[in-house]
Amino acid sequence: MSMKLYPPAISNLINQLARLPGIGKKTAARLAFYILGLPAGEAEALAQSILDARESTCFCERCQNLTDQPMCGICRDAARDVSVVCVVAEPRDVAAIERTREYKGAFHVLHGVLSPINGVGPDDLRIRELLSRLEGGTVTEVIMATNPDTEGDATALYLARLLRPMGVKVTRLAYGIPMGGHLEYADELTLAHALTGRREI
Amino acid sequence: MSMKLYPPAISNLINQLARLPGIGKKTAARLAFYILGLPAGEAEALAQSILDARESTCFCERCQNLTDQPMCGICRDAARDVSVVCVVAEPRDVAAIERTREYKGAFHVLHGVLSPINGVGPDDLRIRELLSRLEGGTVTEVIMATNPDTEGDATALYLARLLRPMGVKVTRLAYGIPMGGHLEYADELTLAHALTGRREI
Repeated sequence: MSMKLYPPAISNLINQLARLPGIGKKTAARLAFYILGLPAGEAEALAQSILDARESTCFCERCQNLTDQPMCGICRDAARDVSVVCVVAEPRDVAAIERTREYKGAFHVLHGVLSPINGVGPDDLRIRELLSRLEGGTVTEVIMATNPDTEGDATALYLARLLRPMGVKVTRLAYGIPMGGHLEYADELTLAHALTGRREI
Repeated sequence: MSMKLYPPAISNLINQLARLPGIGKKTAARLAFYILGLPAGEAEALAQSILDARESTCFCERCQNLTDQPMCGICRDAARDVSVVCVVAEPRDVAAIERTREYKGAFHVLHGVLSPINGVGPDDLRIRELLSRLEGGTVTEVIMATNPDTEGDATALYLARLLRPMGVKVTRLAYGIPMGGHLEYADELTLAHALTGRREI
């Protein structure tokens, strides 16, 4: 319906915004008109920030987190304990755990979780890269910090079975996080407790 | 805090997104990572849609609505009744009224409402343009369709006092719309009733 109501460029902007997660058609229209009403330069700065972020961002060659250098700041930090690797599903989960200031180890970002229903198998995640990190023998513990939901649990269990034969201790975040909840929305204290109370799986 | 957690380009994207209305820091981070995870070309299409919409959009020389031509589609439509002008605060309100399919007249977009607290006076709205439209004598009725809140009511009243001496009938949308509510979120039926039951002010 909006095709007739707005010029094509505005319809297109609304449709583009409506593809973002959690943004419906009405919110997208609201955002679009807000963007069209911004002072000169500000909308362009928003567009440019998208292009810049995409262009300057790559994956850390070690932990697969998003970074603007070959290796991310955490992997470059000599003070981090590289014998412990915390495995998370998404880059935003790294930020969530870093905010607790409780964790001094390394990370590994899978970029997803196993999800047969969505056609996501082990080859679609950065599991190969994790295995090659463990080959060196430096890593003694892998903390599975995927979300405590069906897919997150299945991914943790799958990796635990894969890694245990390699002689590495595999642990899981303590269930301080409410079941079905999402890591990125947990408060710092809950996440810190979950880290401290982690147990072997 | 996010300055340390993310590379500058990602922090910047999060900050830019967090400036949009109704988007908090956590939602902005979620959107940013979603954008960074999009397949090649899609994030660029989003950025481009912002630039295109800004570049191709101007104000209709008659009704001041957003358009990609000198005159908008509604003002160019010979079938519309130009003797009735519906005055709205924002372009999105035009779309809301058009969706009712009840209204066959013209529009005028003020681009705001009177708001002394925010420093918005009559000179900041497209009132001059409305007055010059009425000079021709073609317009017999002006429907004030600003939101039924303090500022919308004040704007309607101000314009009513300004226009009545010009011999034009000034009406207000019927209060089918709940007080304090916003036009763009009203359903089509409520808005249609509000149009039908409009009364002189």
